[in-house]
Amino acid sequence: MGNLSSSEETRVSEFARASLDRQFAEVRKQTMSLVLPLEVEDFVVQSMPDVSPTKWHMAHTTWFFETFVLTPFVAGYKPYNPQYGFLFNSYYLQVGQMHARERRGVLSRPTVSEITAYRLSVDECIRGLLANAPAADWEELSRRVVLGLHHEQQHQELLLMDIKHVLSCNPLKPAYDRSGDSSSAGQDPSLVMQAVAGGVVEIGFQGPGFAFDNEGPRHQTLLEDFRIANRCVTNGEFSEFIADGGYEKPELWLSDGWAQVVANGWQTPLYWQKEAGGWHEFGMRGLLPIIAAAPVAHVSYYEADAYARWAGARLPTEAEWEYANCATKVSGNFLESGALHPRMAAGEEPLLQSFGDVWEFTQSSYSPYPGFRISEGALGEYNGKFMSGQVVTRGGSCFTPKSHIRVSYRNFFKPHQRWCVQGFRLAMDGC
Amino acid sequence: MGNLSSSEETRVSEFARASLDRQFAEVRKQTMSLVLPLEVEDFVVQSMPDVSPTKWHMAHTTWFFETFVLTPFVAGYKPYNPQYGFLFNSYYLQVGQMHARERRGVLSRPTVSEITAYRLSVDECIRGLLANAPAADWEELSRRVVLGLHHEQQHQELLLMDIKHVLSCNPLKPAYDRSGDSSSAGQDPSLVMQAVAGGVVEIGFQGPGFAFDNEGPRHQTLLEDFRIANRCVTNGEFSEFIADGGYEKPELWLSDGWAQVVANGWQTPLYWQKEAGGWHEFGMRGLLPIIAAAPVAHVSYYEADAYARWAGARLPTEAEWEYANCATKVSGNFLESGALHPRMAAGEEPLLQSFGDVWEFTQSSYSPYPGFRISEGALGEYNGKFMSGQVVTRGGSCFTPKSHIRVSYRNFFKPHQRWCVQGFRLAMDGC
Amino acid sequence: MGNLSSSEETRVSEFARASLDRQFAEVRKQTMSLVLPLEVEDFVVQSMPDVSPTKWHMAHTTWFFETFVLTPFVAGYKPYNPQYGFLFNSYYLQVGQMHARERRGVLSRPTVSEITAYRLSVDECIRGLLANAPAADWEELSRRVVLGLHHEQQHQELLLMDIKHVLSCNPLKPAYDRSGDSSSAGQDPSLVMQAVAGGVVEIGFQGPGFAFDNEGPRHQTLLEDFRIANRCVTNGEFSEFIADGGYEKPELWLSDGWAQVVANGWQTPLYWQKEAGGWHEFGMRGLLPIIAAAPVAHVSYYEADAYARWAGARLPTEAEWEYANCATKVSGNFLESGALHPRMAAGEEPLLQSFGDVWEFTQSSYSPYPGFRISEGALGEYNGKFMSGQVVTRGGSCFTPKSHIRVSYRNFFKPHQRWCVQGFRLAMDGC
Amino acid sequence: MGNLSSSEETRVSEFARASLDRQFAEVRKQTMSLVLPLEVEDFVVQSMPDVSPTKWHMAHTTWFFETFVLTPFVAGYKPYNPQYGFLFNSYYLQVGQMHARERRGVLSRPTVSEITAYRLSVDECIRGLLANAPAADWEELSRRVVLGLHHEQQHQELLLMDIKHVLSCNPLKPAYDRSGDSSSAGQDPSLVMQAVAGGVVEIGFQGPGFAFDNEGPRHQTLLEDFRIANRCVTNGEFSEFIADGGYEKPELWLSDGWAQVVANGWQTPLYWQKEAGGWHEFGMRGLLPIIAAAPVAHVSYYEADAYARWAGARLPTEAEWEYANCATKVSGNFLESGALHPRMAAGEEPLLQSFGDVWEFTQSSYSPYPGFRISEGALGEYNGKFMSGQVVTRGGSCFTPKSHIRVSYRNFFKPHQRWCVQGFRLAMDGC
Repeated sequence: MGNLSSSEETRVSEFARASLDRQFAEVRKQTMSLVLPLEVEDFVVQSMPDVSPTKWHMAHTTWFFETFVLTPFVAGYKPYNPQYGFLFNSYYLQVGQMHARERRGVLSRPTVSEITAYRLSVDECIRGLLANAPAADWEELSRRVVLGLHHEQQHQELLLMDIKHVLSCNPLKPAYDRSGDSSSAGQDPSLVMQAVAGGVVEIGFQGPGFAFDNEGPRHQTLLEDFRIANRCVTNGEFSEFIADGGYEKPELWLSDGWAQVVANGWQTPLYWQKEAGGWHEFGMRGLLPIIAAAPVAHVSYYEADAYARWAGARLPTEAEWEYANCATKVSGNFLESGALHPRMAAGEEPLLQSFGDVWEFTQSSYSPYPGFRISEGALGEYNGKFMSGQVVTRGGSCFTPKSHIRVSYRNFFKPHQRWCVQGFRLAMDGC
Repeated sequence: MGNLSSSEETRVSEFARASLDRQFAEVRKQTMSLVLPLEVEDFVVQSMPDVSPTKWHMAHTTWFFETFVLTPFVAGYKPYNPQYGFLFNSYYLQVGQMHARERRGVLSRPTVSEITAYRLSVDECIRGLLANAPAADWEELSRRVVLGLHHEQQHQELLLMDIKHVLSCNPLKPAYDRSGDSSSAGQDPSLVMQAVAGGVVEIGFQGPGFAFDNEGPRHQTLLEDFRIANRCVTNGEFSEFIADGGYEKPELWLSDGWAQVVANGWQTPLYWQKEAGGWHEFGMRGLLPIIAAAPVAHVSYYEADAYARWAGARLPTEAEWEYANCATKVSGNFLESGALHPRMAAGEEPLLQSFGDVWEFTQSSYSPYPGFRISEGALGEYNGKFMSGQVVTRGGSCFTPKSHIRVSYRNFFKPHQRWCVQGFRLAMDGC
Repeated sequence: MGNLSSSEETRVSEFARASLDRQFAEVRKQTMSLVLPLEVEDFVVQSMPDVSPTKWHMAHTTWFFETFVLTPFVAGYKPYNPQYGFLFNSYYLQVGQMHARERRGVLSRPTVSEITAYRLSVDECIRGLLANAPAADWEELSRRVVLGLHHEQQHQELLLMDIKHVLSCNPLKPAYDRSGDSSSAGQDPSLVMQAVAGGVVEIGFQGPGFAFDNEGPRHQTLLEDFRIANRCVTNGEFSEFIADGGYEKPELWLSDGWAQVVANGWQTPLYWQKEAGGWHEFGMRGLLPIIAAAPVAHVSYYEADAYARWAGARLPTEAEWEYANCATKVSGNFLESGALHPRMAAGEEPLLQSFGDVWEFTQSSYSPYPGFRISEGALGEYNGKFMSGQVVTRGGSCFTPKSHIRVSYRNFFKPHQRWCVQGFRLAMDGC
Repeated sequence: MGNLSSSEETRVSEFARASLDRQFAEVRKQTMSLVLPLEVEDFVVQSMPDVSPTKWHMAHTTWFFETFVLTPFVAGYKPYNPQYGFLFNSYYLQVGQMHARERRGVLSRPTVSEITAYRLSVDECIRGLLANAPAADWEELSRRVVLGLHHEQQHQELLLMDIKHVLSCNPLKPAYDRSGDSSSAGQDPSLVMQAVAGGVVEIGFQGPGFAFDNEGPRHQTLLEDFRIANRCVTNGEFSEFIADGGYEKPELWLSDGWAQVVANGWQTPLYWQKEAGGWHEFGMRGLLPIIAAAPVAHVSYYEADAYARWAGARLPTEAEWEYANCATKVSGNFLESGALHPRMAAGEEPLLQSFGDVWEFTQSSYSPYPGFRISEGALGEYNGKFMSGQVVTRGGSCFTPKSHIRVSYRNFFKPHQRWCVQGFRLAMDGC
């Protein structure tokens, strides 16, 4: 790494340098724009162990560039602050010790100002490197910068999920965004189960462009005929499940799910509460009435599975989801819409809401695709080591940057977790 | 249920009645023979929440017959003791409330004698019913009795797993069985990775005979070419992993697995300890030196996965395991051998030890086969509701009754559990 | 220790030897008579960390004699089983490592038979030693045997408290004793607050005879004038506190007490439950209606304190209790009555029920008397090291052997504990 | 309350009004001056359940005045924000529900600015009330304002204890105060055990002036002759205890104390750590070498008790401490010195360091004095309800405002708590 071997043929085009520099600048700026509405106090809080403070996300994404790009590629690079490695490493065990995850909320220092300065300093170094790095380094360096940008986009979504949870825990129910309505006109189309013929099909990432290692290798798989809903289950539909005693009937639930219902007293999706006037939901604009036609969000896998059983259906597998959407256009209600809240379905396509709005549960456990191998070194810890005890969600949400998502993208959460903007659509066997 | 509609054509043959009666008598007697070596005090203890006291197993299997056979099929049947339903239900939520699982060890009463009397009383009623039940009931009744017997065989294995754990927790290290050696001559054959060609294959149960609902429907699946080890990983091989620092290298472990290693201080398989003279293992004959050529047992899924990564291999999927073994003869070191301990491999077949010795980990999460549906009613709670957070093991162990196992049999445990007699064999991609 | 220096004047009288031998035999036999009504299974269970299995008490009291008498005073004594020291030590840290207290219930071995044999073997050795020990050893040896007997009497009470708790946790509500009524005629005398004039008084043990170290030194203390109830608070009175919402009014409770009420859902004394026909109480004869005039039992210090506040009174200090009872005859409803349950007050004396029935809470924290010093060596761990976080109770209960109690006797429990047979009487300031 | 009955004789002097107004302004301003060195982020963190965020202290002390003064005495007073009652009540159960104590750190809002505005608003109202309240209200109103000021002074100490803990948890070890040295010249006088003759003595508060209810009634008590150290145990002395294996010898410890040592791995006082150059201590100026002659601080009661046993001494009772100091001048190293750290002893008096530097452990449990009664109403919850499970400390610390302390002042903490600036001096029996 960093060895100079400057032959003519490996010269890096100015276009490549400028293009990556622009991407870098945009993604990094996007993070800063997301934190603008917050008070300094908001940046500090960790409301549960799964949540990280806002300022931790700002620093951790910066540490990633420092550790995996600046340190190996800038000769004699001195870390901005040698203690930040300990504070802002997340789980890269091969890189060294780290501050305990569930204790991130005790760190009042470095302050938001100090972390902002840290960001600016690293940004400047990276941009200098992009302008001047020797051609021999470019391939690995640009691969890492691109990985770092997708990593930062993941943390943009986490940052929003986390601050939503932080604000929701406050009895004052403060809004992240006080601007007007997040909803848009929509049609609330009728539920249609679209038939898909089975057979030996291919799934998994197929270039060009960036993908995470866990999206490949592209491979064949065998699907039976199936049907899949044209849109997500809505708040209105889910409230019927509640009204029918869905949370009181153990026969609808997986055993581990029922244990969660009992232990945590689940009666509704996370963030729902009963107010005069019916169900309300805490969102980025505060506590507001639910929109019946919008997709239900912030349910666990167990709730999605129980609803599906109640409805006489099931969740799709991830192969079914991906194959059914292989021709679906990647557009929808993403971070860029500014809604920051799921919207009702609209459009004429066979499958609506597949991208954006809510991550969609599949019934598939998160496992390696045939032929997948974890790469060597600390960056190999990125995805593979989480391949147990998690379920796959697909399609991105209203917190996901549009340029971050693909049809082959595999997100994953533990089946009891609910703070992600995740919902589901139904599937059934046969045609 | 229980409706009389005695037409001629539904007469039950004496052979069918006698045959089921004999099976019933044998399985029920088998349970009693397993508890013979124990002291009364041993029947009471619950050494961890996963473990149930011996006498609880004796009573619970009896309650199963009482609840699902006697109560519906014997007109006017009065439960032996109305409180036993509360005490000895395990997880059938649709049948009613139950005593908390983790508090089974506080119940000194009913005594072993009282539970034995309960067993005898229910046995007598069942055998009377088998002799005299009207033909119209026979199909459902015999289906349930057969299910009850397979249920009891599952509890025979659990009873042995549990009492092994109970005795292991005692610093006196008492033996269950003081008779001679459990090992047998073997050859310790060299490790060979057997090549299997992929393609669209069929797996899942194919009658006739009994199978659990989770073994079906039989269905097609697509396999790539793979190789699978001719025998299980041995104690000797696993001790090399330990010696190489396997338990100290986070890069070998799944993230959840490493968390278990750290939290519980795992350094070896459960039941291993270092003594003068090297590694010893607690077994049913007490604390004895490990047999290097015998399969390693009592590892978690995480340990199996870490070993495989260390060895440059992986675990087989359950489809690979089943397909590779579709022609393997179901014979081996089962409960009936009396060894009660895994033995070294022996034989000339391509795959050895597939049945008996140790349950073998697959890398597959326990999920429904395509088309699987949970049956209605309390008996539907049997298998399907555990389909999250578990991994599939295959092939039975030295605690499994021989008549209980099949190539399509799917056992499942949580990835951190270690008290089952479970080991693993390696697999690799390609040919 | 054990040095021979047999001069004439230190000869031990046959009477002294025979007298101690008789005491020894009686106390040891008393323990065995207490376990007679139990089933073997009952001896094994530990229903909560504070409880020890019956057979552990039988073995631990034996280990005490072996460790503190046989090992030092019998030349060449070999422990009955070298592992028993680890299993049956309770908290004598200076004697060595011990089995974790909260894991006593996982030990099915040694069996009840084996422990009974252990008891007989140690008994025989002790009695041989009492007959033949050299005179030079007698003083220390007899001091230790007497301490061992009082230790065993403490464990007789603990054994009964513990088995009562074990049986109470069983939904079958088995009785320890199925014989007739435990109650006796009584008068249920009216509550009278007896006036006692203050001043500088003396409390603490004054020989001759045995006392624990914590009962001395006898010392002066200053009391103000006070009044003390002639009898304990009754079940009937306590049920008025419940009916008045005593368990729902935080203003009646100490802060730590209220936290217990909320965390544990306390609504009544331990062992009370509402049945058709009113309050019932689990006791050694099973679940029976409360006797309104009998003392309330199985309340925590917090409940006693809250009741007193509700009643406009307070609990007595231990100095008040002892001084008020300095002339009270030590008689009452002890273990020997066979009632095994508190009885209503009877008699003409100014203070009734001071001894037996229920241990009585004082408001005094368990602290050293002026001049108290912990003795050197492991036996010094007997009492002093518990002098924090505990409150003093006085007077013995229906589980206490009569020969074990004295007016100066200081028992102590943590303020949240309820499984001791403990109640309270009221006190007030002034005359 | 608030009834007008303006007779001539109850007119309030301008001096009384002005004097209380000045006290009010000074104490309130003192709080604000303490938070000046902090970053906004520091105000938010709760580093353990015992700790409250800085901004919570600022708001809670304000809520106290609002609830107990403005609401009852200002006709038609509208709470500044009706939700603040829920957020900033601490433990006054009679006043209503409250936000869970251990969740105070999840509240990013109200912000520091908003709380500062809240303080200013309440200050203005209180000062208006002090100027204009009718004479009939004055006695109760001024009693409550004075109570509120002492309450605020308690929270000034808590605020400093808490922020010290917060900063100590940060691996960056940030200093609260970067100004120069906190130490001052001293003599490190030799340890002298001062003899005090016993007898019937009086302790407890004797007016005039303010005292908390728990300091009375003044009463007689009987003391034996005793000796008490002229100064506190020093860091140097305590490091000898460590070097002698004090933390490894169970025989030195109370049973509950040893359990804490084992469970928490205690090896030193809180905030000590070994660095090159020897023991360092985290303080308000960061991590600095210990000053050998300064009093040891941040030990638990258990550590103080173990040290005393190791030293062949004991802790004084609170009566001994108070009586020995009845003529000691109330001066020393208080909050006003600006040191914010204990200093070595200096002076010629018989007892040094009794006031300021460190709170001093007594061996006395926190109990009511004879004749003490909890007052009615929510303000009665102030002290009395904590009278179980706590030990008394005396004399104030370097975090205590000078005008807050008295010889009769009774502070109290749980015996395992260590984040208070608390140390101890030794005592012995006899003369």
